[in-house]
Amino acid sequence: MTVGHLDIINRCATTFGRVVVAVAKDAYRKDPLFSIGERMQFLEEYTGGLENVSITELDGLVVEHARRVGADVLVKGLRAVMDFEYEFQMAQLNKKLDPGLETVYMMASPEHSFLSSSGVKEIAMFGGCVDDLVPEAVARRFVEIFPR
Amino acid sequence: MTVGHLDIINRCATTFGRVVVAVAKDAYRKDPLFSIGERMQFLEEYTGGLENVSITELDGLVVEHARRVGADVLVKGLRAVMDFEYEFQMAQLNKKLDPGLETVYMMASPEHSFLSSSGVKEIAMFGGCVDDLVPEAVARRFVEIFPR
Amino acid sequence: MTVGHLDIINRCATTFGRVVVAVAKDAYRKDPLFSIGERMQFLEEYTGGLENVSITELDGLVVEHARRVGADVLVKGLRAVMDFEYEFQMAQLNKKLDPGLETVYMMASPEHSFLSSSGVKEIAMFGGCVDDLVPEAVARRFVEIFPR
Amino acid sequence: MTVGHLDIINRCATTFGRVVVAVAKDAYRKDPLFSIGERMQFLEEYTGGLENVSITELDGLVVEHARRVGADVLVKGLRAVMDFEYEFQMAQLNKKLDPGLETVYMMASPEHSFLSSSGVKEIAMFGGCVDDLVPEAVARRFVEIFPR
Amino acid sequence: MTVGHLDIINRCATTFGRVVVAVAKDAYRKDPLFSIGERMQFLEEYTGGLENVSITELDGLVVEHARRVGADVLVKGLRAVMDFEYEFQMAQLNKKLDPGLETVYMMASPEHSFLSSSGVKEIAMFGGCVDDLVPEAVARRFVEIFPR
Amino acid sequence: MTVGHLDIINRCATTFGRVVVAVAKDAYRKDPLFSIGERMQFLEEYTGGLENVSITELDGLVVEHARRVGADVLVKGLRAVMDFEYEFQMAQLNKKLDPGLETVYMMASPEHSFLSSSGVKEIAMFGGCVDDLVPEAVARRFVEIFPR
Repeated sequence: MTVGHLDIINRCATTFGRVVVAVAKDAYRKDPLFSIGERMQFLEEYTGGLENVSITELDGLVVEHARRVGADVLVKGLRAVMDFEYEFQMAQLNKKLDPGLETVYMMASPEHSFLSSSGVKEIAMFGGCVDDLVPEAVARRFVEIFPR
Repeated sequence: MTVGHLDIINRCATTFGRVVVAVAKDAYRKDPLFSIGERMQFLEEYTGGLENVSITELDGLVVEHARRVGADVLVKGLRAVMDFEYEFQMAQLNKKLDPGLETVYMMASPEHSFLSSSGVKEIAMFGGCVDDLVPEAVARRFVEIFPR
Repeated sequence: MTVGHLDIINRCATTFGRVVVAVAKDAYRKDPLFSIGERMQFLEEYTGGLENVSITELDGLVVEHARRVGADVLVKGLRAVMDFEYEFQMAQLNKKLDPGLETVYMMASPEHSFLSSSGVKEIAMFGGCVDDLVPEAVARRFVEIFPR
Repeated sequence: MTVGHLDIINRCATTFGRVVVAVAKDAYRKDPLFSIGERMQFLEEYTGGLENVSITELDGLVVEHARRVGADVLVKGLRAVMDFEYEFQMAQLNKKLDPGLETVYMMASPEHSFLSSSGVKEIAMFGGCVDDLVPEAVARRFVEIFPR
Repeated sequence: MTVGHLDIINRCATTFGRVVVAVAKDAYRKDPLFSIGERMQFLEEYTGGLENVSITELDGLVVEHARRVGADVLVKGLRAVMDFEYEFQMAQLNKKLDPGLETVYMMASPEHSFLSSSGVKEIAMFGGCVDDLVPEAVARRFVEIFPR
Repeated sequence: MTVGHLDIINRCATTFGRVVVAVAKDAYRKDPLFSIGERMQFLEEYTGGLENVSITELDGLVVEHARRVGADVLVKGLRAVMDFEYEFQMAQLNKKLDPGLETVYMMASPEHSFLSSSGVKEIAMFGGCVDDLVPEAVARRFVEIFPR
């Protein structure tokens, strides 16, 4: 979870009436550094002040999760061409699975367009400072795991 | 105006409460085949059945037009990597001009991802059949201008 | 194996005199869901009606396989920019290895441009319906492996 | 016309039984340096030794020209991502116009991947040496038009 | 001339011993808003404090200009994939023309990656505020030409 | 290590006063074929004739290594759009970590633009000839590991 994710959540909270954040279960991620519990807690702390945002656990297909939580629209962030190509494929696959669910995209803010979870993790692993790149609670946790 | 534009308008009409289509004035287009009047009429005919859609003339900056018509969100279509790069630049420029206006993107349906106004116009100019590519009224008008 | 692969095979069968499909041995694929035997059988069933198509097992370098089966031309499908970049590299490497073997490309049909083996597999794993995305025999096998 | 075009023609002559080169009429090109007559003559001289290659004038839609000359396959060259995106669109448009005509692509040889008609023309205009970039006859003609 | 250009010049002034900025003559630009004289004056004012930077008029091929001013290295900025592809072509063409001249690239700072001369000009034409996007002198001149 | 890497090192040796090559420790590479010791020895042999080039072991963050060896500039090679996007992200991350370190890029020579370590390794594994793709010592070592 980087400040780029939080920026997208904030912008959704302003643009849409109700925002449901879906956090992928550990099983879907190869070698996650933080457990699903930790990741949901980070997000709940951070979004505590946003009344129309709730944090949920994603288990299974995104389109079914969307249906379960009553979402009409799926929101994704786009940072770069590689994101675009991947998301273009996912948009069409998801449309096949649920034609009634629309996907819309937000462009990452330019100051976040270079942020990726794996890049941030790599810096933290080598003891680099990631204070500007992740929320404060995540930065503190990184220092515990990888002492500088 | 291609069936790709109409697809995006239709999907907006389902996803958002109110949709304001902005049609660029002739002056902004080099050598437009159809006048702004004709283009607005095509869109009005086509969207007549959609109660929450209105057609407006875009004169000046998009962000100011959005403010004038009371739009919170700008919706754009993305077909390909080249669209993505151009729209990424426009999103940031527009954010500079009006930080309160959010831009979101919809991916073109795969069966429209190859459609461009200039490609369709070129086919029509050489007498090719564009009936599947543009609304019926536009196709009729093309045949008048460029008899097959 | 998706309907996208079958579309390319069909188009090859129309365009070229003789078509030899090369199916990669299990060893070259990380964690294949279907064995080489199963994959070859799916293709043989599907292409049974195409007289000029034969199914072969690819073991080793593609250029040597091409020489062995007497192919003059290698045909690959292109769906997106990422395919293009990878295939551009492979085309030049293969030309170094065998300057006499030409590679040509076919663009995926737009309705298949979003299909990838990994995407389809992911949907099937979560119990999603992939009936439109893969041949019937593959869809049946998916349901056996991942009951919905 | 660059050595990149000639490379594609040569490779087609080896790969396909009969090759028909289509040269666009002047009207379709903004400000052509060489007339259609000159361009056809350059190609005829260059391909004189290739028995299965003929040079034709393209007037109208490519798909109709293909039908007229009895071509089953359209061959295009790909140099870069921008080519890929444009050609992806054209492939689908042409398939709409004539579903029976297949388009296949050849990757530019790496030593030609940076060549474009406009880049070469710009160098020649400023008196730069383009001897390695275009056929000898074209280089001579450039020197006549733009003395070094 | 945007703040993106100035950022690249500043970074060059820190990285290299001597920096020679090449400003293209009017003739090479279609419909320039500012004359070569104005553009050179803007740059001279802005770079007045940088002792190792000089401003020169580019007339003819860049490689010859580089030789004339004694440059060993050509520096270009990269903002996006489209820049990359164009510059990749130019790098190879220039290497053909002068194998002894090396080209190196700097990535635009993320906060400038969305800036283009044409985008800024369009905003100014419609009376939008470009104060953050161009140097102060340029912004003042825009207001004179296009009163808000 | 391919001839593409050596080309970039050679060009750096001509362009910059002092060149420090950083070779990643084994731990950072998944399943390296050659140990760090072997890789450093290959490079030392190859660059023996270049007086201003030294070979170092990279352990930890690149920006800290650069500081340790006294580098002002980081040089990276770019082959394709995918490289560009990845390097764009890394440039911004590294700038965050050390604003005083500038990164510049060199475009791969076209005859090397298709080379990747993984592609070369795959060819060698299947007994293909990689003599033109890697330095002589590496080619010899490949034949020992994967007899043709």
